[in-house]
This record gives sequence, structure tokens and C-alpha cells, in this order.
Amino acid sequence: MRDFSADHRWLSINTATVRAQWKLDRIIEECARRGIRAISPWRDQVAAVGLERVARLVRDTRLELSGYCRGGMFPASTPEGRRAALDDNRRAVDEAKTLDAACLVLVVGSLPGALEGRPVGKDLAAARTDVRDGIAATLEYARDVGMPLAIEPLHPMYAADRACVNTLEQALDLCDALDPARSGMLGVAVDAYHVWWDPKLQEQIRRAGTDRLLAFHVCDWLVPTRDLLNDRGMMGDGVIDLPQLRGWVESAGFAGYSEVEIFSAEDWWKRDGGEVLDTCISRHRSAV
Amino acid sequence: MRDFSADHRWLSINTATVRAQWKLDRIIEECARRGIRAISPWRDQVAAVGLERVARLVRDTRLELSGYCRGGMFPASTPEGRRAALDDNRRAVDEAKTLDAACLVLVVGSLPGALEGRPVGKDLAAARTDVRDGIAATLEYARDVGMPLAIEPLHPMYAADRACVNTLEQALDLCDALDPARSGMLGVAVDAYHVWWDPKLQEQIRRAGTDRLLAFHVCDWLVPTRDLLNDRGMMGDGVIDLPQLRGWVESAGFAGYSEVEIFSAEDWWKRDGGEVLDTCISRHRSAV
Repeated sequence: MRDFSADHRWLSINTATVRAQWKLDRIIEECARRGIRAISPWRDQVAAVGLERVARLVRDTRLELSGYCRGGMFPASTPEGRRAALDDNRRAVDEAKTLDAACLVLVVGSLPGALEGRPVGKDLAAARTDVRDGIAATLEYARDVGMPLAIEPLHPMYAADRACVNTLEQALDLCDALDPARSGMLGVAVDAYHVWWDPKLQEQIRRAGTDRLLAFHVCDWLVPTRDLLNDRGMMGDGVIDLPQLRGWVESAGFAGYSEVEIFSAEDWWKRDGGEVLDTCISRHRSAV
Repeated sequence: MRDFSADHRWLSINTATVRAQWKLDRIIEECARRGIRAISPWRDQVAAVGLERVARLVRDTRLELSGYCRGGMFPASTPEGRRAALDDNRRAVDEAKTLDAACLVLVVGSLPGALEGRPVGKDLAAARTDVRDGIAATLEYARDVGMPLAIEPLHPMYAADRACVNTLEQALDLCDALDPARSGMLGVAVDAYHVWWDPKLQEQIRRAGTDRLLAFHVCDWLVPTRDLLNDRGMMGDGVIDLPQLRGWVESAGFAGYSEVEIFSAEDWWKRDGGEVLDTCISRHRSAV
């Protein structure tokens, strides 16, 4: 297992972590100034600054992108809706390529309308079929472009509105079905927050192996958790045994960045951005 | 599949559903008056009225108990703590027997201290070992008394503080390990709220079969869900396909009560208790 205690060579900042404080150009500047070597930006943050400008800033600061957030959201209640999702995913692949991201992260979506609070049905199996078909179509395009897709299984508490892929096993079953050759173009993003509870976690990480482990995200599960979406904890403040989990992914061959992604409306998003980044650095060294 | 549309012969009320409105003696009276034939009470509600008095009320009204809530909470940080949990579970078995419950439901517990907001560690594997040992010991006693134990896998969002058994597969693996003969004394409580998202749900329900399916709980998953614990929906108000799920458990041989269990601090617990029970009856007929 790599030693993280002496530096932050393998720290990446998912830019949602300081989204409330700064726009992306400032985030890039603040990360670069601290010797942070990688980020993972969100599409809306990129759009707000401009894709070409972000690409230039990333090149100038020599930041790597441990991922690009996010494609997915495949299910829709109409054929037009599903086609629009595929178009949007092709654009996301192109943007990820322009930014030279390591992978495009897929939050796959679930019941149509649920994210807006107005689900139009209850057919989870149909949503899962849309997801499978959507990933298959996007994978074809991503192969041509050369941009790996990372399916992110989301915590089951998001099964209705954000993602109907909810365990690592389910994500890997999808990978095996759509990319049996393990081409390296389809894999998973293992986010500690989403998977830490899973009794089959270690076994499925081993199954994933180097070919499928495209991204590793960290934060912490707070006790109590006061909000389903925006109450994630800083590494070390919750109950996830992050060193154990990192040990498992590294044993399975993962050697990339440890990406910090914290949504925290009542705590970290209210603090000074510099304090947040400095804390990410120190906790990366002490708690991951 | 049984026809629920014409009557409420197979409706049971988990008494937490109207816990904010009434004490247990009144709940029993209100259920009996409406021709509800079964309840599932909580230990604190029973204690508040007195075990013997509740046993008499239940006999007088000819109510059945589809279950008794709850045993479990096995993990502890000290040997004394684990022994105390076993003692408490034996008392719960005795109470369930006194009330002639169909089973004692087990919410197995997880990280010691987490339920009080002060987790003393992060060792989920150790908690799972405590759970396994605790169920094994309790099962020995329960066999003597003749009280089946129903492991309730809880939604993964409760993995830190309430239960480290979080999928039906995991619960059934425990059952197979501790009761390989499928004696009927160890099984599962399938609660729609906890398991609806699981991609392996249908397959694991089939695996459970008649011997292991000891209880079936319903409510609904609201979109959005505003609180991790107390924002459950009335059947029909959320996104769980309850008729499909009931079809699966009945196909696997379950022929018992459909037990309504709704924790709802901001909605159903604020309404008139009679309105809640009447709504449970009508939704049992139309949405389960």
C-alpha cells in the first residue's frame, strides 16, 4: 500500500468539494498553488468558465484530471428523452477528451422524473434496461474517441432519483455484459461513501481488478447523517475505515488518485475554500 | 396472488405507525374496532401499558401478532455489553412468547455507540461477527421457547447505527450458516422500504422460500425523502412497486400478513390516528 503520510502526490480534488466557494478557474489556481496535482471537475462548473479556457488552465497548471463528472442519466419516459440523453453523453465524452480526463464518470440515472420530484412511474427494471442500453451506446462512441467510462454505483438511498446501479457487484455485472474483453474502456468508480456498507465489497473490488478500477473517491459517513444528499463528512470525521478500503483497491491493482468529493451544505461548503483544501491535504495524509 | 382488493383480512398494523397518537391499549381497541386482525407492537409500547395487560387485550380482541418489535442490537464494545444484549434478547423472546407473536423481529445493530451518535470504532466486520454470534446464542434460546427469529435486513443508510445486515442475501447467508436445516426457527423479515432497491431482490426472495419468509412489511419510498429515519410514505404515495413485490414473496410461498410500518414525523404521525388506520386499510386494498 502506498504511503500517503508524507506528501499529497496522489490527492485529487473533486471540484464539487469547493463549489459553493469558488468558480472553477479559482479552484484550479488554488489547487495548483498547493501542489495538488489532480482535480475532477463537474460539467456545469466547466461550462460556467468555458471549456476551452478550462482546458488551457489545466494545461498551463499541469493538472491531471482523475475524472470528469459526469455522464449518465440515461432513463427517460420517451424515445426522444433517451435519444437526448445519448446525445448529451456524447458531448460529455467529447468534453472529457478535450480536458484529457482519465475517465468519464457515469451517474446512470433512475426513474424518469424522480430527480425533479415528479416520478412518472415505478418501473426500476425498465430504468435498468435503459441504463444498460445507454451505456452500450455511449461505450461505442467512447471507444472511438478513446475515453474510458466509469460506472459509479450510488448508495441505495439514491436508487429512486439518481442511480439504479447501487452495488459494485451490479456495476461489474454490467461491465462484464457490455465489455467482456475487459478492454479498459469500461469500468467503475469506487466511491467510499456509496459502497462502504456493502458486505461483498472486498470480494467485488478483487473481482474488478486493475482493468475495471478507474477511479477511487473518498469522503466519510457521518453519524448521524442529517441529509440524504449534502451531509458528507471530511475523511476521518466519520465511520468509514478508509485505509482498509484503500488497501483493498490497491491490492486489486489500483494505483491512481484518491479523489476527495464532499457535498456538505451545512459545514464544508460554508467554510473558507482555502481551509477546505488545506484540510483535504492533511486528512489525505492522516486518514486515507 | 391473493386478492387484497375486497377486504383487509391480511392487513397487520405495526403499532409504530400510530405511536405518536395513541398508547398501545388504545391502538389495540382502534384496530379491533376496524376489523383489523393483526398488529405488530414494539417493546417500549408494550412496557408502557404492561405486558400482562397487553397479553389480555390481545386475547380478548382475538388479535394476532404478525411479529414483535424488536430484538437485536447485538454488537457492543465490551464483553459485558454483549452479554447484556443477549440477556435483553432472551427477555424479548419471552415477551414475544407471552404475546404469542409469529416471530421476534431482529434489528441486529451495528457500530457500538453509533445509535447514540458516538461511535467508538469503525470495525464493521467486528460488528458483523458480534451479530452472528448474538443471533446464534439467541437462536438456541428461541428454539427452546419455540419463538422464530426474523432477521430484518435494514436499508444500507442504516449500516452505521442500526443494522450491519443490509441485504436480503446477507441475511439469508446468516440463516444458512446458523440454521442449515431450515428449521423454521430462523428466517427474515422482508420490509419493502429496506430492500426495494436491491437488484438481486427477486432472486433472493425465491431463495428464501416459505421456510425463511417470516414477515412482510410495507410502506413506501417518497421522492424526495427528507429524513433518513422518519419520512416513510403511505403505500401508493411513493415509488415502490408493492404489488410486484408482494407477488414475489407470495410466489415464494409467503401467505401471512402484510404489515404496515410507517415512521413519519412530518406527516402521518401528525394526523388523526383514525384517519391513519382508515388510510392503511384503503391503501392495503388498492396499493399493495
